Formats: sequence, structure tokens, C-alpha cells
Amino acid sequence: MISVQRLDARDAQVMIAGARARAEEIGVPMCIAITDEGGNLVAFERMDGGKVTSITIAIDKSFTASGAKRATHEYGTASQPGSPAYGISSAIGGRLMVVGGGFPVMVGTACVGGIGVSSGTADQDMQVAQAGVEAFLSTL
Amino acid sequence: MISVQRLDARDAQVMIAGARARAEEIGVPMCIAITDEGGNLVAFERMDGGKVTSITIAIDKSFTASGAKRATHEYGTASQPGSPAYGISSAIGGRLMVVGGGFPVMVGTACVGGIGVSSGTADQDMQVAQAGVEAFLSTL
Amino acid sequence: MISVQRLDARDAQVMIAGARARAEEIGVPMCIAITDEGGNLVAFERMDGGKVTSITIAIDKSFTASGAKRATHEYGTASQPGSPAYGISSAIGGRLMVVGGGFPVMVGTACVGGIGVSSGTADQDMQVAQAGVEAFLSTL
Amino acid sequence: MISVQRLDARDAQVMIAGARARAEEIGVPMCIAITDEGGNLVAFERMDGGKVTSITIAIDKSFTASGAKRATHEYGTASQPGSPAYGISSAIGGRLMVVGGGFPVMVGTACVGGIGVSSGTADQDMQVAQAGVEAFLSTL
Repeated sequence: MISVQRLDARDAQVMIAGARARAEEIGVPMCIAITDEGGNLVAFERMDGGKVTSITIAIDKSFTASGAKRATHEYGTASQPGSPAYGISSAIGGRLMVVGGGFPVMVGTACVGGIGVSSGTADQDMQVAQAGVEAFLSTL
Repeated sequence: MISVQRLDARDAQVMIAGARARAEEIGVPMCIAITDEGGNLVAFERMDGGKVTSITIAIDKSFTASGAKRATHEYGTASQPGSPAYGISSAIGGRLMVVGGGFPVMVGTACVGGIGVSSGTADQDMQVAQAGVEAFLSTL
Repeated sequence: MISVQRLDARDAQVMIAGARARAEEIGVPMCIAITDEGGNLVAFERMDGGKVTSITIAIDKSFTASGAKRATHEYGTASQPGSPAYGISSAIGGRLMVVGGGFPVMVGTACVGGIGVSSGTADQDMQVAQAGVEAFLSTL
Repeated sequence: MISVQRLDARDAQVMIAGARARAEEIGVPMCIAITDEGGNLVAFERMDGGKVTSITIAIDKSFTASGAKRATHEYGTASQPGSPAYGISSAIGGRLMVVGGGFPVMVGTACVGGIGVSSGTADQDMQVAQAGVEAFLSTL
């Protein structure tokens, strides 16, 4: 058997609080999703004004980042026309997200989960997701 | 145009807290989902030990209850073999849930959202969902 | 964070070999799927003559059993007309399997994965899945 | 009627073993899927550390390669913006994979199955998939 570590429900709340605080600072209401290392949803919040379309996008960004152990914007670069991962964005029924805003949560070399944020620009989503990751890492 | 009232993000957290407290009392870790009156997810929490299969089930119970303005267990009764709604459980790609644990949130005659709970027996899920509704109603 | 234990790739091969041996004994070629505790596929084998329709059924039985920490035939009982879980079989896009042949793999009180078997009768599927579980447990 | 030849369960294990050996050489844990000439899954293995998102991607690469009798990276070239197959990557609900790592298994002019590999770069996936094909061909 393999032993793994993953985010728990309390960690997820810490991450959402950290992301929400950042979203409020920049004045963009967000959808924020947290998944464990198996890509399964642990917690989700749609701030008042967050986009309805962003519910699934945030969840799928987090799924992608935790499942692939890779930030979604890196897939964005790797999947440009002419690049090796071109076309990957429609994989897994469209769940494979290549737009920025999804980050794996790495503790040492292990991926323990992920965060996905959506409703702003890709840059805003990335800032807010990063704030969620940092809020968690500061508790270790 | 129509003006509608719906649960906000804070209401959703009140409901999750109320449901979680009840789940802890009965010792069953749950998946808890809150949707607005449009059936769209506002908040979600999988307590540590909540079932992976219950993530979607909780969200879909809440979707069903808020979208149909009806508790999911009522559909269970109405969809028994020989009854008029027989077969409804596979509607909407299987999202129409007829198992207990989904409740609409009614304020007067208006449905302002819903809650869906899954991981226990149908009876346990219903108790925990009801506690979430009551936690919200007590704030009005 | 939470620490969990899960089946690894070698465990999955042990389970498939155990299930395959039993399938050969009873003369029924099977589809055999192994998932980890997050419900994600670790290994799969369709024996020569296993049913094409059973590919997804075996995978979804294993997903259900590991995700819900419960044997699929127990859902079959609980979801009969008039019973509390009636209608659950179409949940999660139909992935929630209530037909026998899916078992969680329990080590003490922890669910570390699951096995799903399909192509025979429910009873045959259950025998073969059980043999897979036993093959693994005998290695501990 | 038509007689066809296809990979059997033993062939699939030979291919997975060949691919796994190459994956271990390059130090990248992979998801490896084998399908028959009907595009239906015969065997699958997720090596320890293989990506959760790659489960479906590996299966769909193999499905695409065996079903279309064409390597997935050839679709990558043919589906670039301005090219005739542009947009094909979202076909079949996203199952049509255009990223490298899927190969048909050709015996003479007949396609007898396919292999799909995912978790590394497209180049790594292709190397490992090719090793799986070669392992099988060396048994003929």
C-alpha cells in the first residue's frame, strides 16, 4: 500500500478564507474550489456575485491541478497551437482546464490537493488561487 | 421583470455550520451542498470521512430540491413503481435525485435555495439537511 | 492534513490475479477493475470473452464500492422499491452501481480501495470480486 | 462476415510490461491503456505516481488510435488552426485525442488494437507507448 497525505476539511476552509480575502482586496467576487490529491472536491464557495459559469470551471481547475500536479496555466502554454499538448483542453469531457487559476498544493515533493479559482481574468484568478495556497502553507 | 430573493454566501455558511454540527452529533461525516433558487451551487463541504460518491449526490440533491422547490424524498414517494413520477430518477442525466436528504429553503411561499446532504442513511441525511435549514431560518 | 493508505499498483495486480483465478475456476471470463480509496482507477483487465458492456460496469462498481466504502449489492437491497435509497442507481450520471460485484477493500476500519467485477451473474461477479479482495488481504 | 484479429488479454499484459519497463527507465510513472481493434479497453495500469487526470486521457488516446487506426500525434498535426481537421479534438465528447502518446497496433495492414500512455510530456508518452507496441510485435 501507499501512504499519502491530503488536505482535510479545515485546510480547505483556511484556503478558501485566504483566497476570499484576496478576492475582496481586488474587488472581484470569485468561485473558489478545493480538491484533495485524488481530484475530489473538499470545499467550494461562490462569493456573492461570482459567475454561475465559473462554478464548474473553478471545480475543474482544481481537479486538473491536483490530478495532474501542475498549474493550469502551464497547460495553457503547453497547449498553444503548434505545441506538444495542443488539443488537451477538451480532454476528460472538457474537465482538463488550461486556463490560469488552478494550482496544485505541494508539500515538499508531494501534491496534497489543489485549488481552482474562476470569475475574474486569468491573472486575477491566479492571484486569488495563489493567496489560497499561501494561506495554507503558512499554517504548516 | 421579477425580483427574487436567494441565499447568499453567508447564509450558505450558516447552513453548512448548522448541518455540520448535527452531523457531528450523530457521528456521521457528511457531504453538504447549498444551492441558490436557480439551482446553482453556492457552497459545499465534504467533512473528513464523507464519501467520495456523495460529492455529486449532495450537490444534485440540493439542485433538485431548489430547482423543483420540493424535498427529494417526496419525489421518492411519487416515483415508486406504478406512481405518476415513476422513472423520474434518471432525468437530467441522473441529476434528479429522489432519495431523501434534499430540502428546498422556503421563506414564506418563496423558495430561496436548497440544501443537499449525503453520506449517511436517507434518514440521517434528512436530519442533517433539516438542521441546516433550521440554522438559516433562525437568523431571519 | 489527513494521512491515508491506499492500494498501490502491485496490490492491484495481486487482486486481479486472485479474481482471474476464481473466474477461470468457474469458467466465466470477467472484466475486473481496481480503484484506490479516492475512487480512481488503478488497474483493469478484460479477460478474453469478457463483455464489452462490462468494462464500464466493472469500473463503476469499483468506483462505487471504494467511494462509498460499501459493497454494491448492499445498495441493491437498500434501493428496492419502497426502500429509502430507491432511485439511487441513476445517481452520478449512472455511475452509482447497485448490482452486486463491487466491494470496498477494508484494512481495519479504513477503506483503502475497491474492486469491481462484471460479465457473469451478480452472484458470480461477487464471488470473483471477493476472491480478489482475499488475495490482497492474504498479503498483509 | 468478416474475420478480425485483435489483441488478447495476454498481449495486453505484454504491452503494459514493455511500456512500464520503458517508463521506469526514464523515471516517469505513467498511465497505460490497451484497447482492442473495436476501441474497447482490454487492460489498464496506473503506475504509482501516475496522474489521476491521465487515467481517462490514456484510455482515450488508446481508443482514438485503435478506433481511427492512426497515431494521436498525427491528429495533432492535422488539427492545427487552418488545417482540415481543425476542431476534431473536441469530437466524441472530447474522447478524440490529438496529443501524442496513442498508437495503433498494426500487424501487416491490419489494426489489431492500440495503446495510450499519459502522465509525461507528449514525447515521453510517445516513447513509452512505442515501447509497448514493440514488446508485442517482438512476440510475433
